[in-house]
Amino acid sequence: MKIEPTAVPGPVRGFRFSGVHGGLKRRGRRDLALIVADRPVVCAAVFTRNRAAAAPVLVAREHVADGRCRAVMINSGNANAATGEKGLRMARWSCRELASRLGTEASEVIPCSTGVIGVQLEKVPFARAISLAVDGLSRKGLGAAARAMMTSDAFPKWSTRTARYGGALCTITGLAKGAGMIHPSMATMLSVVVTDAKLSRRAAGSMLNSALAGSFNSISVDGVTSTNDTLLLLASGEAPGGLIDDEDSAGFVEVAAALGEVLEELARLVVRDGEGASKMVDVVVEGADDDPSARRLADRVATSILVKTALAGADPNWGRVLCELGNAGVEIDMAKLSINVDDVSLVRGGTLVSDEARRMARRVMRGDSFTIFLSVGKRSGKARVITSDLTEAYVHFNSSYTT
Amino acid sequence: MKIEPTAVPGPVRGFRFSGVHGGLKRRGRRDLALIVADRPVVCAAVFTRNRAAAAPVLVAREHVADGRCRAVMINSGNANAATGEKGLRMARWSCRELASRLGTEASEVIPCSTGVIGVQLEKVPFARAISLAVDGLSRKGLGAAARAMMTSDAFPKWSTRTARYGGALCTITGLAKGAGMIHPSMATMLSVVVTDAKLSRRAAGSMLNSALAGSFNSISVDGVTSTNDTLLLLASGEAPGGLIDDEDSAGFVEVAAALGEVLEELARLVVRDGEGASKMVDVVVEGADDDPSARRLADRVATSILVKTALAGADPNWGRVLCELGNAGVEIDMAKLSINVDDVSLVRGGTLVSDEARRMARRVMRGDSFTIFLSVGKRSGKARVITSDLTEAYVHFNSSYTT
Repeated sequence: MKIEPTAVPGPVRGFRFSGVHGGLKRRGRRDLALIVADRPVVCAAVFTRNRAAAAPVLVAREHVADGRCRAVMINSGNANAATGEKGLRMARWSCRELASRLGTEASEVIPCSTGVIGVQLEKVPFARAISLAVDGLSRKGLGAAARAMMTSDAFPKWSTRTARYGGALCTITGLAKGAGMIHPSMATMLSVVVTDAKLSRRAAGSMLNSALAGSFNSISVDGVTSTNDTLLLLASGEAPGGLIDDEDSAGFVEVAAALGEVLEELARLVVRDGEGASKMVDVVVEGADDDPSARRLADRVATSILVKTALAGADPNWGRVLCELGNAGVEIDMAKLSINVDDVSLVRGGTLVSDEARRMARRVMRGDSFTIFLSVGKRSGKARVITSDLTEAYVHFNSSYTT
Repeated sequence: MKIEPTAVPGPVRGFRFSGVHGGLKRRGRRDLALIVADRPVVCAAVFTRNRAAAAPVLVAREHVADGRCRAVMINSGNANAATGEKGLRMARWSCRELASRLGTEASEVIPCSTGVIGVQLEKVPFARAISLAVDGLSRKGLGAAARAMMTSDAFPKWSTRTARYGGALCTITGLAKGAGMIHPSMATMLSVVVTDAKLSRRAAGSMLNSALAGSFNSISVDGVTSTNDTLLLLASGEAPGGLIDDEDSAGFVEVAAALGEVLEELARLVVRDGEGASKMVDVVVEGADDDPSARRLADRVATSILVKTALAGADPNWGRVLCELGNAGVEIDMAKLSINVDDVSLVRGGTLVSDEARRMARRVMRGDSFTIFLSVGKRSGKARVITSDLTEAYVHFNSSYTT
């Protein structure tokens, strides 16, 4: 899919960045990203719910427990997952190593890893990477950091917004890595958002969780997450506005909205980067009994291999959609089903509108971005899930990408 | 995958078969199969649980309610699904049409359909097919009937066994159509088994349900079924043995075992026919807390797109297996996980045995049939799910196969 490159975002008050090659990856590709705050900052986090959570996730959970941190350290090339006690020791060591160079405590460092599973990290290149990365820290290093997080990503991902509160502007800037796969969240997704807004721990946690619902959790399914998924929000508080302590504080709504936009843009970039994907498709369900029912129906359609291959072929194969809806475990009346593809009415009352409608839908589906609206009843339950198509290129990629 | 063709099974006492072209499909391909008993016989049935069940399924459910039937009529090329009231009238009409030619009641005919969804059946070619099929009925028509059921199938499917009871032999012969897809049962699966054993309605239902667990339900997932799935067992009672009335009757065990083998062979043929699949892989989970937990774990691995693409590439990518197990919603201790690929020990205690083990596993995985054993603990829960690999050919097929 063609991606319009956007300029690398500028500095965010209170943070420095770097991205270097230390030898964890081959051929000189960057493999360590650092995001370092000038002093300890407020931090909120969401981690994978996978029962096989990787070593860095176990350590990171401990280190964010107090809601503060100084640095985020992300290595690519090796996920440090399924590495047992030895992997855990390595994750702890890397935090101590960076902390000593920054003159802080290991518990102020949040480690993240992404790459192959089941292989031990090597200390020598890792130490070299940490050393180089600390030396390379800069206010303008955000692009390098984004590149150093990449694994199977075709392009680096960032997004930035400003918000106005207390008569001044603050900035919210996020980095992410991840490529939308069949179950998008199966690809390790790492994202770090930094802001100079003055957030309490409580406010940071609250706005991160609500922004998640409309972004990364709308491209994931049933809590399906990889061994390493991590989402972090760091707030330096160096913007001029006052403290945003909770949802009633001045500025909460503005900053939360900007954070929501940043995370949604990052999530869409992850879907667009789906290995071999050629289209981004929104699946919207309306009229279900409640939101969870709508979400089950949308998930079912959005993750169906048969629907996704039909999307690749620009085929308005509504029979496959119907079949998936019938298997979602939700009571719906097929005789009331309507399907629109963008503004083309394809199905009404459970049957095809006309052959002409099918031809028009096919034309829309040849584009690289469209919405499938599924109206399943008269109630208020609704949901949106963003998906990609399943192409031969995807399978080629995932058959040859080896451990 | 190379399939060894087996000879078309011979006659089964009490039944005639035919398979003809009437015009529901193009280019002279057979599109109507008939299986007709000489007189009303005992019949047991299992149908799709899809909420969007097709018109013929709705009619068939009514017609098997009394546990007896004369004929099974299967058209291919059109599923008569999502066709509303008109489709229902067509299904009822087709039963009357056949019944009048056989001199029986419409309620003695079980209709099945498979093919495209959402298109109305045409009466003229259907009537022509019925007429030709009745004229063509023969004791030896089983091969023609199997071919007339095919849609995306690459080859016709049958299986036959004999069982000895009451000092004589009876025959159990099954026909099936279906091609194992990503979620295998998403492809319409139709199967009709005929036997000359003397079964009560109760015995037929009981042995059909238990044989199902080890066959078609081991290639399906979470009750995921297409709009038209139907499995039928017809028993003419013309073999010399006495009545098999229930599980304690002489002969029950022998006939049930033979039926189990027939259904397992048919299910494996469906997996082998997976559009574009190149391998058949058994996923076996042992040591889980209970059988349902084991089944959830096995399903998760067997239906994972990432695992299935790794199978296509003969890649012993145990990280993907681990990640899926961690997402199955079952509490397991990853530090106790063992993985074998046939007799190669790949993972012990949650980590890779050796690089040599990985090379040996890769060699096994280059074959077209092997078993992945997952030992997840010390308890007695176990399950087996049969899956296929996901190849580029599969995606090509499903992107271009259109409504």
